[in-house]
Amino acid sequence: MKTPSTTSARLAGRIKHLTGSVARDILSRTQDKEIISFAGGLPDATLWQDLKLPEVPPAAYQYGPSEGEHSLRSILAERNNSLGLPATPENTLITSGSQQGIDLAAKLLLEPGTPLILEAPSYLAAIQVFSLFEAELHTLAVDTDGICPQALDRLLTETQAPAVYLNPTFQNPSGKCYSLERRQQIAAVLDQHGTLLMEDDPYRDIYYDEAPPAPIASFLKSAPWIYFASVSKTLIPGLRLGSLTCSPELYDDLLKLKQASDLHSNRPAQFIAASMLADEAERAERIEGLCQHYRQKRDSMQQALAQHFTDLATWEIPSGGMFFWLDLEQSIDLYAALEKTLEKGVAFMPGSPFFTEKCDQGCSIRINFSLVSPKSMDKGIKILSDAVRDLQQASTCVESIA
Amino acid sequence: MKTPSTTSARLAGRIKHLTGSVARDILSRTQDKEIISFAGGLPDATLWQDLKLPEVPPAAYQYGPSEGEHSLRSILAERNNSLGLPATPENTLITSGSQQGIDLAAKLLLEPGTPLILEAPSYLAAIQVFSLFEAELHTLAVDTDGICPQALDRLLTETQAPAVYLNPTFQNPSGKCYSLERRQQIAAVLDQHGTLLMEDDPYRDIYYDEAPPAPIASFLKSAPWIYFASVSKTLIPGLRLGSLTCSPELYDDLLKLKQASDLHSNRPAQFIAASMLADEAERAERIEGLCQHYRQKRDSMQQALAQHFTDLATWEIPSGGMFFWLDLEQSIDLYAALEKTLEKGVAFMPGSPFFTEKCDQGCSIRINFSLVSPKSMDKGIKILSDAVRDLQQASTCVESIA
Repeated sequence: MKTPSTTSARLAGRIKHLTGSVARDILSRTQDKEIISFAGGLPDATLWQDLKLPEVPPAAYQYGPSEGEHSLRSILAERNNSLGLPATPENTLITSGSQQGIDLAAKLLLEPGTPLILEAPSYLAAIQVFSLFEAELHTLAVDTDGICPQALDRLLTETQAPAVYLNPTFQNPSGKCYSLERRQQIAAVLDQHGTLLMEDDPYRDIYYDEAPPAPIASFLKSAPWIYFASVSKTLIPGLRLGSLTCSPELYDDLLKLKQASDLHSNRPAQFIAASMLADEAERAERIEGLCQHYRQKRDSMQQALAQHFTDLATWEIPSGGMFFWLDLEQSIDLYAALEKTLEKGVAFMPGSPFFTEKCDQGCSIRINFSLVSPKSMDKGIKILSDAVRDLQQASTCVESIA
Repeated sequence: MKTPSTTSARLAGRIKHLTGSVARDILSRTQDKEIISFAGGLPDATLWQDLKLPEVPPAAYQYGPSEGEHSLRSILAERNNSLGLPATPENTLITSGSQQGIDLAAKLLLEPGTPLILEAPSYLAAIQVFSLFEAELHTLAVDTDGICPQALDRLLTETQAPAVYLNPTFQNPSGKCYSLERRQQIAAVLDQHGTLLMEDDPYRDIYYDEAPPAPIASFLKSAPWIYFASVSKTLIPGLRLGSLTCSPELYDDLLKLKQASDLHSNRPAQFIAASMLADEAERAERIEGLCQHYRQKRDSMQQALAQHFTDLATWEIPSGGMFFWLDLEQSIDLYAALEKTLEKGVAFMPGSPFFTEKCDQGCSIRINFSLVSPKSMDKGIKILSDAVRDLQQASTCVESIA
């Protein structure tokens, strides 16, 4: 995805590691077309089609504090507190989406060659940021319950990585949710090594069976931590609002990094979010409706996949979040498949951008089910399965001729 | 301003160069008090007290493109075009304030030890970002017409700096505006060396005599450039919206850096700005009113300064922007003066944060005149001049005793 630069300008060394997001490239190619897109991670716009934003007071028009509005920080801190995190407004920072939280943490922690441990697969836009800051990325495979605590222990001893980045709750892209026991074991390993945990938790509220276990950070006794949350998945993504909460001793540096990045986040958005989140009962009711809505979509998607993909791939039914993760039985060129499906008006995400260059990438597909209407799902999944089947047969053909 | 970190976390080397903004520290100390503040660079909130924001369509609630809304990019590109810049929507990127533009440019250009040339004094939050990215900062003094082209030529030869950062139009903090001739000469020097120009231009629209000359970037023939603009000073600062326009070959990398930083800027704000800027005649009328309003404030401030500071300092009357820059006749500890004036409810900005550590800092004060009401100006300037006079007399006393 890297276009070689032809400028006469002398650029920083990190730019050779700069990649775009494949998902956003696909999105921009499909923006003006009628397309069935399983590619992005977009909420369903029908959920807010009748929503009018609350009025914004002129007080929100002036420059504001870099840490964000106290009202919103209080609401988000209280929420994090209820999850077991030692959160107060004083260690909670409003960010321009949790993506900015990742950028601030990268600035805080990473220099060329800093070892950093991630899951395989991991969130592609986090890989993008960590690569840009020239970290040396090490990965651990995710099984049904999460990464293996013993493997983490060994890798920490081996690499002396100062930090670990995890997305343990309905992970993007795999949909996996770490068990309570794993969370406690991982926290113990991090405490033992004194390793900083970056925990990215944007999907926590969207669950279809039971509520997920508490954040890993809530089980830490001494290791430093940064916990990223977002309102993009449950409120309004266009606001670009998220938050980070962290060990108090990290807060001052993260606040200065925020200030240097953009002074502060959009203030009307902060007033809107604070107003929409102020009433806890109302918030709970809205989230409950959202979960019901997406649960139906998950079930429709499972039905379509069972119909068209049973002979082609294996997968687990996600108990939260917005994605299915399909492991294909036979490897094919997924970008060739993508070209075929785009011609027929269907977009999906090949799995490779969710892996670092070094690790085993298998042959997987991420399927988003939050955006597309149930009636388009079957049509789109059929087109996708046809493309995969064609390419598999072509490759089997080549193999048998050879 | 650097608080030593006491965390057990291992932080990146750049964090030892991380400073907060003195202006924002003073702002946060004075936030809940009735204070006469000459410290910040805040627009006058009375200008928008009756403003109701235009309604935002639900289309703005979804995730959007990283480059920003096409409608807003078109309006801003057209505006830049009218200034002589080769701007189109395709080389215009919406940023979260021009502060974010500086952050993106720093990511694009700077690694530890990269030489970079700035004005002395320069915009303090730019110094903050460039220091964080560990550039080696070199400065050139600003005379009445701008930096000296011959001195720039020599410093470029000596340092081989790949980039120069300038704020040539009603500079923050000095209020200086580069002459047309200087702009053309500087462009020629940059072309000759192939040096990238970062031109920061947030105050261009706010002028009190005649319109300022075209941007330096408009005179470049071959050198790469990035031009930062902002709507914070002329529309609504709380929106946190700015833009950058650049040499086309730099755009793709800057767009990916934007994507990695926060995916995209707040969308409702982009719809609001596009709606408020759509009608050019209306925009021109609004800016004209704004200039009249601030011209009166500048004149009131000049009157107060002439009354209380004539024996203490020299200054030029700014022909645009939001600041007076006072050179004190006799050096004093301005932070001691600030403690004194804060006790009496007056805030101002000592000049030193606008200089890099290495360069001669003189003894200057930046006075903002856009925020405070004319009737409070005389009172506040009197308190400030009393504090300066007391400290000067105390220091003269000590000298004559010694």
